[in-house]
Amino acid sequence: MLGVCYYPEHWDEGRWETDARRMVELGITYVRIGEFAWSRSEPARGEFNFGWLDRAMDVLHAAGLRIVLGTPTATPPKWLVDECPDILPYDEQGRVRGFGSRRHYTFSSKTWWRESARIVEAIARRYGAHPGLAGWQTDNEYGCHDSTLSWGPEDLSAFRDWLRHRYQSAEQLNEAWGAVFWSMEVTGFDQVSLPNGTVTEPNPAQRMDFWRFHSDQVAAYDRMQCDLIRAHSPGRWITHNFMGFVSDFDHFKVAENLDLASWDSYPIGFVEKFPFSEVERNRWAETSHPDIAPWHHDLYRGVGRGRFWVMEQQPGPVNWAAWNPVPKPGMVRLWTWEALAHGAEVVSYFRWRQAPFAQEQFHAGLNLPGLDELSPGGAEAAQVARELATLPPLPETRPAPVAFVFDYPSYWATMIQPQGRDFRYEELVFRWYEAFRRLGLDIDVVPPGAPLQGYDLVVVPTMVHVTDAARAAIEAADGMVLIGPRAGSRDRTFAIPENLAPGPLAGLTGARVTQVASLRPGLEQPVTGSVQGGVIRWRDHVTADADVLARFADHGPALTRKGRVHVLHGWPAPDLLEALAAHMAEVAGLQTLPLPSQIRLRRRGDWWMFFNYGPGDWTLPSGFDCLMGGQTVPPQGLTIAQRITG
Amino acid sequence: MLGVCYYPEHWDEGRWETDARRMVELGITYVRIGEFAWSRSEPARGEFNFGWLDRAMDVLHAAGLRIVLGTPTATPPKWLVDECPDILPYDEQGRVRGFGSRRHYTFSSKTWWRESARIVEAIARRYGAHPGLAGWQTDNEYGCHDSTLSWGPEDLSAFRDWLRHRYQSAEQLNEAWGAVFWSMEVTGFDQVSLPNGTVTEPNPAQRMDFWRFHSDQVAAYDRMQCDLIRAHSPGRWITHNFMGFVSDFDHFKVAENLDLASWDSYPIGFVEKFPFSEVERNRWAETSHPDIAPWHHDLYRGVGRGRFWVMEQQPGPVNWAAWNPVPKPGMVRLWTWEALAHGAEVVSYFRWRQAPFAQEQFHAGLNLPGLDELSPGGAEAAQVARELATLPPLPETRPAPVAFVFDYPSYWATMIQPQGRDFRYEELVFRWYEAFRRLGLDIDVVPPGAPLQGYDLVVVPTMVHVTDAARAAIEAADGMVLIGPRAGSRDRTFAIPENLAPGPLAGLTGARVTQVASLRPGLEQPVTGSVQGGVIRWRDHVTADADVLARFADHGPALTRKGRVHVLHGWPAPDLLEALAAHMAEVAGLQTLPLPSQIRLRRRGDWWMFFNYGPGDWTLPSGFDCLMGGQTVPPQGLTIAQRITG
Amino acid sequence: MLGVCYYPEHWDEGRWETDARRMVELGITYVRIGEFAWSRSEPARGEFNFGWLDRAMDVLHAAGLRIVLGTPTATPPKWLVDECPDILPYDEQGRVRGFGSRRHYTFSSKTWWRESARIVEAIARRYGAHPGLAGWQTDNEYGCHDSTLSWGPEDLSAFRDWLRHRYQSAEQLNEAWGAVFWSMEVTGFDQVSLPNGTVTEPNPAQRMDFWRFHSDQVAAYDRMQCDLIRAHSPGRWITHNFMGFVSDFDHFKVAENLDLASWDSYPIGFVEKFPFSEVERNRWAETSHPDIAPWHHDLYRGVGRGRFWVMEQQPGPVNWAAWNPVPKPGMVRLWTWEALAHGAEVVSYFRWRQAPFAQEQFHAGLNLPGLDELSPGGAEAAQVARELATLPPLPETRPAPVAFVFDYPSYWATMIQPQGRDFRYEELVFRWYEAFRRLGLDIDVVPPGAPLQGYDLVVVPTMVHVTDAARAAIEAADGMVLIGPRAGSRDRTFAIPENLAPGPLAGLTGARVTQVASLRPGLEQPVTGSVQGGVIRWRDHVTADADVLARFADHGPALTRKGRVHVLHGWPAPDLLEALAAHMAEVAGLQTLPLPSQIRLRRRGDWWMFFNYGPGDWTLPSGFDCLMGGQTVPPQGLTIAQRITG
Repeated sequence: MLGVCYYPEHWDEGRWETDARRMVELGITYVRIGEFAWSRSEPARGEFNFGWLDRAMDVLHAAGLRIVLGTPTATPPKWLVDECPDILPYDEQGRVRGFGSRRHYTFSSKTWWRESARIVEAIARRYGAHPGLAGWQTDNEYGCHDSTLSWGPEDLSAFRDWLRHRYQSAEQLNEAWGAVFWSMEVTGFDQVSLPNGTVTEPNPAQRMDFWRFHSDQVAAYDRMQCDLIRAHSPGRWITHNFMGFVSDFDHFKVAENLDLASWDSYPIGFVEKFPFSEVERNRWAETSHPDIAPWHHDLYRGVGRGRFWVMEQQPGPVNWAAWNPVPKPGMVRLWTWEALAHGAEVVSYFRWRQAPFAQEQFHAGLNLPGLDELSPGGAEAAQVARELATLPPLPETRPAPVAFVFDYPSYWATMIQPQGRDFRYEELVFRWYEAFRRLGLDIDVVPPGAPLQGYDLVVVPTMVHVTDAARAAIEAADGMVLIGPRAGSRDRTFAIPENLAPGPLAGLTGARVTQVASLRPGLEQPVTGSVQGGVIRWRDHVTADADVLARFADHGPALTRKGRVHVLHGWPAPDLLEALAAHMAEVAGLQTLPLPSQIRLRRRGDWWMFFNYGPGDWTLPSGFDCLMGGQTVPPQGLTIAQRITG
Repeated sequence: MLGVCYYPEHWDEGRWETDARRMVELGITYVRIGEFAWSRSEPARGEFNFGWLDRAMDVLHAAGLRIVLGTPTATPPKWLVDECPDILPYDEQGRVRGFGSRRHYTFSSKTWWRESARIVEAIARRYGAHPGLAGWQTDNEYGCHDSTLSWGPEDLSAFRDWLRHRYQSAEQLNEAWGAVFWSMEVTGFDQVSLPNGTVTEPNPAQRMDFWRFHSDQVAAYDRMQCDLIRAHSPGRWITHNFMGFVSDFDHFKVAENLDLASWDSYPIGFVEKFPFSEVERNRWAETSHPDIAPWHHDLYRGVGRGRFWVMEQQPGPVNWAAWNPVPKPGMVRLWTWEALAHGAEVVSYFRWRQAPFAQEQFHAGLNLPGLDELSPGGAEAAQVARELATLPPLPETRPAPVAFVFDYPSYWATMIQPQGRDFRYEELVFRWYEAFRRLGLDIDVVPPGAPLQGYDLVVVPTMVHVTDAARAAIEAADGMVLIGPRAGSRDRTFAIPENLAPGPLAGLTGARVTQVASLRPGLEQPVTGSVQGGVIRWRDHVTADADVLARFADHGPALTRKGRVHVLHGWPAPDLLEALAAHMAEVAGLQTLPLPSQIRLRRRGDWWMFFNYGPGDWTLPSGFDCLMGGQTVPPQGLTIAQRITG
Repeated sequence: MLGVCYYPEHWDEGRWETDARRMVELGITYVRIGEFAWSRSEPARGEFNFGWLDRAMDVLHAAGLRIVLGTPTATPPKWLVDECPDILPYDEQGRVRGFGSRRHYTFSSKTWWRESARIVEAIARRYGAHPGLAGWQTDNEYGCHDSTLSWGPEDLSAFRDWLRHRYQSAEQLNEAWGAVFWSMEVTGFDQVSLPNGTVTEPNPAQRMDFWRFHSDQVAAYDRMQCDLIRAHSPGRWITHNFMGFVSDFDHFKVAENLDLASWDSYPIGFVEKFPFSEVERNRWAETSHPDIAPWHHDLYRGVGRGRFWVMEQQPGPVNWAAWNPVPKPGMVRLWTWEALAHGAEVVSYFRWRQAPFAQEQFHAGLNLPGLDELSPGGAEAAQVARELATLPPLPETRPAPVAFVFDYPSYWATMIQPQGRDFRYEELVFRWYEAFRRLGLDIDVVPPGAPLQGYDLVVVPTMVHVTDAARAAIEAADGMVLIGPRAGSRDRTFAIPENLAPGPLAGLTGARVTQVASLRPGLEQPVTGSVQGGVIRWRDHVTADADVLARFADHGPALTRKGRVHVLHGWPAPDLLEALAAHMAEVAGLQTLPLPSQIRLRRRGDWWMFFNYGPGDWTLPSGFDCLMGGQTVPPQGLTIAQRITG
């Protein structure tokens, strides 16, 4: 189903009915509203002005639309900031981040929790039972604009409280952090300082705890909102719209509060954000890379425990990347179908109409700026709606044969201690994901500790700290397992394990890491054996009580296998990664369909859906009947097919 | 005529007479003094010490020199800063910019206005009627070192006052800024904040107003100085020495206070400042690019309503660029003649003698550091003086056949919303100017709204907001008109016009912009038709009720024409730009003389002056008699010629 | 002899005896301890807790180890910082640099001096006569992490005092700084401000004084520590462990307090820090560049007036560079032997055992993280110990035939006024050193003003300000002298000398600099004559009353000679530098042995020690008998040989 994001407060009331009617005509079912509308709803403390929102919800409901209502906490109004400056966040340089855009609050502020509860409760009370209300969105894009971490006095105070709870005594804190090093010991929690502004790098264990603390805060803050909403709006679901490539907090933890996950899909904007090469950026500038959106779909299907929406779908050029091209014709349709292929329940476009004013005036909508006239993206959305209406209902999403374990704390750990400037967790995961997707495989993304039984192959690109639960899940996996470099290299206190890396995985892998090397661009170490190619960026020097399937030139193990558990002891260059993926698929007994770099496949039930991100036609292999589209998939096109049985 | 910048306070009084005599012997007429001499003139509050300046002016006057006296407000002394720290500016990061160099004041400080008035009046009273005084310079290089904008408490207060005046009510402010977006609404002007330090980008309309506010302040501050000077120094002209490539305030507006414009010409330093490619930077490192100085000459002739000086002419290597080579032999002479060719009334070298101390000790002068001995640049200045003495008087400057409309607010608008990282207004204008100059055309630069009648061709590289006056002037033009991308894309409140871009130009152009694309380096969209080549960096997707002279590969209009008005709907790559310039010159009926990239031509009356920036000889086309120099122009040389008639 | 750095406070007391025994078994003589152990020794003000250190010293001593005890002033504990925040340093942006790592103090703080004296005296009293104590190390790596300069209120106060002492009156200060320029004059020392936070560049003379002030402070602070130690620990020597490529203070001056110098040798980490090209960085990533460690050995042999240690020797990968590869097998042994070849008395590895916690957990030790098991580097250290035991005693180090004059103030001067972005003093010196080392020459490094008699060749890559003593030493040299660009270009007050550069060297060189050019990358000026090649980055335009041995294309002198004194008037490109080194060696009558880029030679007495940094074998020239290793030196290997006489 389709949805759209709408801002009634941006338009004359006289236009609302027309807007609602045209949404329905286009084929839209859901409309999200309200998530930035605090100043209009409460222009001064306690002076609530909900009339406009009452009327807007009634108009939308009357037109037959189902409403998703956002809490407006991403944009505290100016009167509140002036009254309570302690809600403001601080950047790592110690500068206050002020009013004038959005997300200008720190999760650490008790004042902010009180004020958030006040506005959330007021809105939940008022609209919790509105007949047009389908569900809720908490806040907006937690963590966007680097807003998870904050470095102000409120943060210090809350961090000390969090540490008191975790460590009980200064002695245990000192021990956990190795604070004897460089005389960093404290005699009480009120001596703890923030891990910024130091002369050289601060204690990495302190930084890791600071990151965990903030991640915990996001989850707790969201839970506070959810609890209030549930109290006043029984029977409605709650989601949050996560932002792509924001990993500063654990999305799995936040989603424990939620009924379903959703995410904001800006496939082209992300091309400039993700560390692609310039060649790749140029190649994918006007279509996006064919794994950007799919990766997030699979991730948020996992975050949402099977249920997810795209809450904001890019409908044309955006305003916020370094460069913002117009997507190639067809891409808005392709992205929409692709989201559905990966299991999205709803794809909701951002936004109904391009705003001619303020920060996002260069951001396309389904309608041209200020006008009741579809944009090119709007026309493609309408096409999808027509196609959905003519096709049979989409089949159920089935479990994939391959599981990727995604571990937010590994992102934090490698940001804190990259050790080599280009060791980026998100990039490692993305490249491994791409390699398996190039084999035509469907992939589930799961958190550490989730059950792994039933998967033919489990991939753990890395997991810096391996909890008991995560280790147990890997041990209990009944398919093949592939683990990458740096796994198990830190314990709970962010120290090197007593038995060296991979710590708790030692028994499962048979490996022991004695030295690690980060390799500057230009250095590559060749690997030969069952897989061939190069290792770049990172190498673990190991001794192995396991089968050595491939070795480095100095005879050090590169790929080892002990039982089901394979470990690659380095960051694979593209050639090695391709060989590795093929090797693992083979030993896991997976049926693969190798695809060119611009083609991707995703199954939903017995539908095989092929997507063409390239500039030329691509023809399906034989053996398929086409439900939509033909054997030849045109540029920026898709084909839905079913295998010919018998 | 020639001039020089002199600092009597830097040298023993005993040397002044020799200096003055040697200036006159060299052929110098004007001497500028005094513009940084506050601490020497008022070493403590109210303790004026003008004796040295009295004597210096008398010595210079006695030698026959005409004096330009600068007000010393660019360098408030330490006692004043200590007493009144509220005069200090703040950078965008919120850090105070302190004492120790120059331009350490904000235009927003009322204290600073009071103190400025005090010192300007004291000096104007004392020297306003001095017989050696020719004219005045206000302050020094407004805006240099990013000193136009400031972000401190005084700025906030003054900005709020400016907004009160502009918008009258908070409601109108909210409406103009689209402040409902992201809950940015205020209920009073005292809730307005500065547009810095936000979590993500601040409101662009707020930023645009903040820029306008500062630009207005520069003009008002300058007017205050001019009013005081005129009150005490009747019959003397006033100028200000603008700095090249500083566009943070509207120079046309400041010049309304002035009798003539002047600018500071550092052709080689600017090679490192302007966004040239590395190849170009290397090519022009020791001569400068052949359009750098000419562009500014033409701009400031426009700013000065026909009258301008070069107040500071680079005489050798400077100290402030990333690299500072020695200019090729002949360049100081060439630059001087070139300024005269473009209509400069006086070319004044900076400075008489290289200072062996303080910040500019690596900056060449006409004399070697501390010595009474001409530098190589000094010898070239002497050569120019001799040449001027032997040639007939320079003919009058005539209006050019081509007008460029230069619009400072378009610089601000595209800095605020580049949308693509390399959309730089100054670069767009410069490249278009270069293309027409390569055709041997003379160019006038005029402000938006200036009358355009009489020009065969009017070029508007872009004009983001088109005022009624600007539209009317374009409509009234009687030559051909060429307009570039993004024109008319914002209205007075920095919103997208209700009829979409080009807003008020819609009727004149027949175009309507439905989408815009910024194109990362490496993306190029081919154009075919009456002109051929590529579009880079920016494309406007348009529908056109006009003749389409060239199209993109997707058939979208690239170059349209409606009556006289041509629009290029993108940023031209060099090949397209060259074709476009040739096409426009042809349809405008202009006589062109295509020149190689290192040769430039400028006419003054019936003198044709050819300048050779290249490393090899260049020979004039036939049909010229040479007044100075020969048919073959040597490297770093020039030839003044007249067409052979009949 | 060998040593090791050890942190008993990091390990259970129960492990100390085993550690000490294993050190002795490995062949270690010296153990350095204590330099970061303040919080453990004084957990709260006045509550001293020295029991653990008493026991640790006793255990180490009992095992037969000789102890070097560090003062713990590099890591003031949190209670002290909380109590006395005025000890904290400020960065150039004006931000306080807080607790949480190390070196968080400013040398300007009187409180800090008092507190430092208190802890140093307590430790010196307690351990000054310990029978296991061999000597002392003051603090740790002065200046590391840019900790020499600080920009806070304590610094301003101390700077004003320093200026009062130097200049006596505001008039003399104004005169020295040329403060009349830009109205920077002050009427008293309390008007002096810090040279940061200015709108454009601050006064370079002020900056130079600020740097001298800080350099003086480091020396004075160190002297305070040394005086206290000597008072309580007679008969023990004192050193400081200098950090490589830290030149913010004058190491020669600090070493005047010391009995011997020592330095911390991280050859691979420095590859990322020094401005090598990417090609070089890749080439030397896993071995280091073959002049990095040798340059420092020769420098600190000079700083220590003949006596130096390597206090911290890299034993494997480190944690702090942009990338941190594992050194090639053999390199730890090679570096150790190389240090001995250059005259190191002791090579002390950092550290005994890799710490599994805190900031340096990725930094290798002689033992694996937390374990009693040698790392690969530990095994190489053991090999060196065995080799030392089997060889005859190392011969005495003899004076080298070539002297390099290294001048810390020239580093400051060119940092303050690079004039071209890539004029880096350390790079200039390093490249010239490399060129002469490639000829197989041994080099001594000496400070300005040191006697130069006896050297066949004296090289002064540059010396921006030439003191009377430095000039006299050059004049008194009895070998050939080679001087580089910019020499003598500033006087004592950082002004251009009255007779222009090279100022006091004018008589010795016959040159006079009239203009200077910095040349951007890509500009190169060819030189022909006795030496051929190119000048890059910098050229002095000179007139010369001397023999001109080589000229630029415009006939300007490039290499001049007057008597013994040669001057190269530019920054040589590699080809010119190679030719210049060969030319100078020839005219100086030096016996050279040209070596490939990966091979180096250093003599100690009659031992010729050849080191192979390359990936292939290299064979000695004929005429040598091998003491250790063979005629063919394998990759990462070395050979010690003696010339066959007769």
